[in-house]
Amino acid sequence: MSKQKPSIPKGTRDFGPAEMVKRHFILDTIKKVYQKYGYAPIETPAMENLSVLQGKYGDEGDQLLFKILNSGDFLSKTEEEDRHDSKTLQPKISEKGLRYDLTVPFARFVVMHQHNLTFPFKRYQIQPVWRADRPQKGRYREFFQCDADAIGTNSMLCEAEIVLMIQEVFKNLQTKKANSLDYAIKINNRKILSGIVEVMGAEGKETDFAVAIDKLDKIGEEKVKEELKERGFAQSAIDTLSPLFTLSGDNAEQMNFLKDFLKDSEKGQKGLAELNEVFDILESFGAKVPQLELDVTLARGLSYYTGAIFEVKPKNVEMGSICGGGRYDGLTDTFGLPDVSGVGISFGVDRIYDVLEELDLYPENAETSTEVLMVSFDEESWKYCLKVLHRLRTANVKAELYPEPIKLKKQMKYANDKQIPYVILVGSEEMKTGDLTFKNMKEGTQENLNAESILKRFLGYE
Amino acid sequence: MSKQKPSIPKGTRDFGPAEMVKRHFILDTIKKVYQKYGYAPIETPAMENLSVLQGKYGDEGDQLLFKILNSGDFLSKTEEEDRHDSKTLQPKISEKGLRYDLTVPFARFVVMHQHNLTFPFKRYQIQPVWRADRPQKGRYREFFQCDADAIGTNSMLCEAEIVLMIQEVFKNLQTKKANSLDYAIKINNRKILSGIVEVMGAEGKETDFAVAIDKLDKIGEEKVKEELKERGFAQSAIDTLSPLFTLSGDNAEQMNFLKDFLKDSEKGQKGLAELNEVFDILESFGAKVPQLELDVTLARGLSYYTGAIFEVKPKNVEMGSICGGGRYDGLTDTFGLPDVSGVGISFGVDRIYDVLEELDLYPENAETSTEVLMVSFDEESWKYCLKVLHRLRTANVKAELYPEPIKLKKQMKYANDKQIPYVILVGSEEMKTGDLTFKNMKEGTQENLNAESILKRFLGYE
Repeated sequence: MSKQKPSIPKGTRDFGPAEMVKRHFILDTIKKVYQKYGYAPIETPAMENLSVLQGKYGDEGDQLLFKILNSGDFLSKTEEEDRHDSKTLQPKISEKGLRYDLTVPFARFVVMHQHNLTFPFKRYQIQPVWRADRPQKGRYREFFQCDADAIGTNSMLCEAEIVLMIQEVFKNLQTKKANSLDYAIKINNRKILSGIVEVMGAEGKETDFAVAIDKLDKIGEEKVKEELKERGFAQSAIDTLSPLFTLSGDNAEQMNFLKDFLKDSEKGQKGLAELNEVFDILESFGAKVPQLELDVTLARGLSYYTGAIFEVKPKNVEMGSICGGGRYDGLTDTFGLPDVSGVGISFGVDRIYDVLEELDLYPENAETSTEVLMVSFDEESWKYCLKVLHRLRTANVKAELYPEPIKLKKQMKYANDKQIPYVILVGSEEMKTGDLTFKNMKEGTQENLNAESILKRFLGYE
Repeated sequence: MSKQKPSIPKGTRDFGPAEMVKRHFILDTIKKVYQKYGYAPIETPAMENLSVLQGKYGDEGDQLLFKILNSGDFLSKTEEEDRHDSKTLQPKISEKGLRYDLTVPFARFVVMHQHNLTFPFKRYQIQPVWRADRPQKGRYREFFQCDADAIGTNSMLCEAEIVLMIQEVFKNLQTKKANSLDYAIKINNRKILSGIVEVMGAEGKETDFAVAIDKLDKIGEEKVKEELKERGFAQSAIDTLSPLFTLSGDNAEQMNFLKDFLKDSEKGQKGLAELNEVFDILESFGAKVPQLELDVTLARGLSYYTGAIFEVKPKNVEMGSICGGGRYDGLTDTFGLPDVSGVGISFGVDRIYDVLEELDLYPENAETSTEVLMVSFDEESWKYCLKVLHRLRTANVKAELYPEPIKLKKQMKYANDKQIPYVILVGSEEMKTGDLTFKNMKEGTQENLNAESILKRFLGYE
């Protein structure tokens, strides 16, 4: 074995302790809210059969799947003529791939386990996914998704609860009083978009419309109109849209406008009725959700949405959508289980991480870190420390003893580097009196206290 | 897309809600203990460069690595003559692989981040690993490892704390009074094994000795002796071993015997001194560890151990080792960072899962499940439920409302299937009086209570 300078694949990351603490904070917060609303966890394998993954994400998606080479003598089942080009050879030497998202594996899970599941089935799933995308700032080849879906019910209760879950997650992520994240929960309904297309007299072009309108935030009204024209929409149809771009007022006022605008589209009216039901249920809950904003231009490129569409957008920090989702029909159709309607959301963990960082919203005392370090001056005091250490841990205090009685400075540096908030110093004087030196690392203050008094401090008794 | 019956790759598993709750229980228990002893979490990517993984696990290990096909036109960088056999072609079309364990990625992590880490560096890591092994009962192609390692210190404090962590994990996994897991924490030291080989006059054959003696549990003394003979040990050398096979008495008595047996081996004496120090530190802790058993025949096949060796073996259930580890030197040598000593353990999560299942040790009320389901009789009472639901959730009660006011029987089945312990039924009578029907699903009893009284029950006030 030659010595080598090790590296990791591009687009992938290591997470050290400091990052892990922050990531745990985000994921645990989301997890707790999902659980509170009755969503139960599942996990699926990282590898799926390519037959399950392929054809589900479009041609581009198929390209971006990481494929796993068959084990052993993978060429043994191929012929000479299979080996001339990658496209022919690939399916013969690779049968498995890494999951691309959590939605397709979830659909596969539901179909395979349908006879053992309780419907409506509400599951959450927090796992990494892999995409052979070109790595760039904020885009990784391995990243976590954090999904919740409820399937097997058409009830708009799910949509209303999704709104409440989003609100609760972002409330719980903000533990500091000083700073806060300002955000909008944007909501729309795919049927409203279809209604608009119908009113434009452009039935059948829903997807073209969705793709173009989706860019409004990025490219502005004029460019969207140009794109619609390029995509074959008539100028008169595009003109019909104008009032929608300048639509203002609160949700109720916009709903009123749309009721009239979509009066000739049955589908549009259905979309409005669904949306109205979501608002109604939220009101019956007695919940106040000032963040909820109807946005008729919200489309989200994904063509599989059929009802509600959600997106969360930060307002006081430059960042794209940090959470999104919607209702879909036919998720499990492709695996032979038709007529299953579902609705789901996904939090963008990496972006939320950056938002909390930028706004300095992480709580100060992280869950995982050591609370106190014991520091000793010599062999004898090192041994003395062991009993105290054991006493602290027995009371569930997260405590460490520096493993050797080396130079004080080096031991203190360890406490500093690990951001351990308290240190207990033990030398010959401390051993004689039993009063240990208890140092607050942040304040720089110290007191002499016996072990039991120190313990009480940690247990919050004193 | 044609309809297909979906499947998952052999050797992989889906985990449904019931399994996830149990797995979370095990992993959270281990995680909390790791944290209490000052170990901090890290995570590394699933994919590593093959240059990092290959050559670290022996030839067999290299075979068992899952390799990822390069993206895009993977054949473009190969020549006609590369394509005749798999061995030649593989390195040209695949540069990444899935991690095989957590140890090599950890070594890579330490080397890459050495300038930002605080030494001694104590990390834990809980992530899946992948091996293209032949699947069989209890052996999977994707499974979780759950490692803790302390590197950059030679202090035997780490060994002593590993013993305490093991004891605490298995104590905390046993929440039921009725049943319990009986187990031994076996300890040995690689230097003692080397000493024995020296006493046998067979220096240089440490690995052969370790491999053979490791099978003692499975094949018995006679067969081990046969294997030693096959591996070229002289009969006289094998005879020297006899007293070790019948060694009895407590740890102190065995230590006494070994002191004499190994008197001519410096290495053996060093091993005994290290072991003695571990016992000493445990005594200074004031900890009682009746489970700790010196076992001079414990070898663990892995040749990279250089000091302490650990293994946990259940005694009242048929099962192999459920936790193992030891001290190693030179883990990071291969990546160009010499002289780093470390010691670590790994819990076998899948086996522990089966042990707890067999002994019925899982706690009854699982962390993730819904505490109460609201059930309604019609549209009106369904709406009425929303306010109560909101009130419960605001007080952090995990609560659900069945999404539609369908047949009572179907709603109750949902509660049963999800093992929800309480149900609140609301019909016209309940709405009139405000006294809701509160049903204990396990006892089958029910009471009429208003919403606030029900809430108090969940908060533990009444």
